[in-house]
Amino acid sequence: MERGSQNRTAAKEGETTSRIPSQSRKHGKAGAQASEVSGKALGRMVEAFMRLPGIGRKSAERLAFAVLGMPWDEAAGIAQAIISLKNNSRYCPICNNITEEEICGICRDEKRDASLICVVEEPSNILILEKTGIFRGRYHAIMGAIAPLDGIGPEDLKIDGLMERLNAGGIKEVIIATNPTVKGETTALYLSKLIKPLGISVSRIAYGLPVGGDIEYADENTVQRALEGRREM
Amino acid sequence: MERGSQNRTAAKEGETTSRIPSQSRKHGKAGAQASEVSGKALGRMVEAFMRLPGIGRKSAERLAFAVLGMPWDEAAGIAQAIISLKNNSRYCPICNNITEEEICGICRDEKRDASLICVVEEPSNILILEKTGIFRGRYHAIMGAIAPLDGIGPEDLKIDGLMERLNAGGIKEVIIATNPTVKGETTALYLSKLIKPLGISVSRIAYGLPVGGDIEYADENTVQRALEGRREM
Repeated sequence: MERGSQNRTAAKEGETTSRIPSQSRKHGKAGAQASEVSGKALGRMVEAFMRLPGIGRKSAERLAFAVLGMPWDEAAGIAQAIISLKNNSRYCPICNNITEEEICGICRDEKRDASLICVVEEPSNILILEKTGIFRGRYHAIMGAIAPLDGIGPEDLKIDGLMERLNAGGIKEVIIATNPTVKGETTALYLSKLIKPLGISVSRIAYGLPVGGDIEYADENTVQRALEGRREM
Repeated sequence: MERGSQNRTAAKEGETTSRIPSQSRKHGKAGAQASEVSGKALGRMVEAFMRLPGIGRKSAERLAFAVLGMPWDEAAGIAQAIISLKNNSRYCPICNNITEEEICGICRDEKRDASLICVVEEPSNILILEKTGIFRGRYHAIMGAIAPLDGIGPEDLKIDGLMERLNAGGIKEVIIATNPTVKGETTALYLSKLIKPLGISVSRIAYGLPVGGDIEYADENTVQRALEGRREM
């Protein structure tokens, strides 16, 4: 009986649905927005969250409702963290890492190997590399990658600062940890040609299968690189 | 030659790696945190974002760096939206939808069918249902679901307000759109038993295969419900 009533409802909804132009149903463009249904403040919160990378409308709505359900202090804490981050953080003048000090903690750390520099595209990459805990040298973020199609050339990157550090002497090896993409690879090649004449050893982080990944899902380029980079066991 | 040097680096890194206890590498607990590498303000931002649902450490770090890279005004806009949302939004006293007005836009809309109420668990569900554009009745958010294991009984939900609306008369049908979960189903059954004696028609939204889904990936319960709920073509 319960089920019978479900069927009836479904049929009823089906009929209603068929009267709506399929275009608007498919793309949902005609669908209601957060500000119409739940007020302008919620709508503005959704729009604000959507400015963050990887946050689409659906995630932004979920986050907005979460903020709404939080204690006032906790929500204000997020707002305060944003303002504090923007007011207090700056780029390290040596390596472009993010810091609140004059010079970042890694550049100040005397225990780290000053003869080894790892070049990354973005300051955020430094955090990822630090998490491995195996690299004990220093860093240099060049703030992007060479991308001729986007009009980004070497002169738009912080390569000058890197070359100054290398020319100042004392550097034995540079590890290039730009992204495993066409842009990152182009940048790696460019840097390699620039640095090698200084008599400094230049290496590139390895390509291969991601740990924990399934070879079946790897693309053929990655598998090719994994084969080429094979090591004796 | 390029490749040869890559191989050497990989081998070198491999050696370094083998000296690190595998425990710390596997779980990454010994890995550096954002506040150590990129300053306390960034660390606090990461912690703040992690309080949001579905945002783990990695996503929070990505978001924190995105905020850092934003123009000041845009970042401040997010902070302002949080404060404004918390200060200006409240629950509609009739249906518990989120609103900035005395009574929410849906309850105020005279063009909507006042004889039809759709019951949902959370105010956020109202937005999802509104996006379909096919429901023209009104809503009632009961602010949760019955969950005896979590100590949440009917008395902890906003069911009284719903019953008041139903007892006031003029309601012909109640559609129960609680979640398709054990809690949601328990709540639906409870509400159905409460409402039917009032002579009001009660229906439950349909179970079945999600649109665009692949039957191969559906769980057997869903497929069973989809079979039971089949409709003549």
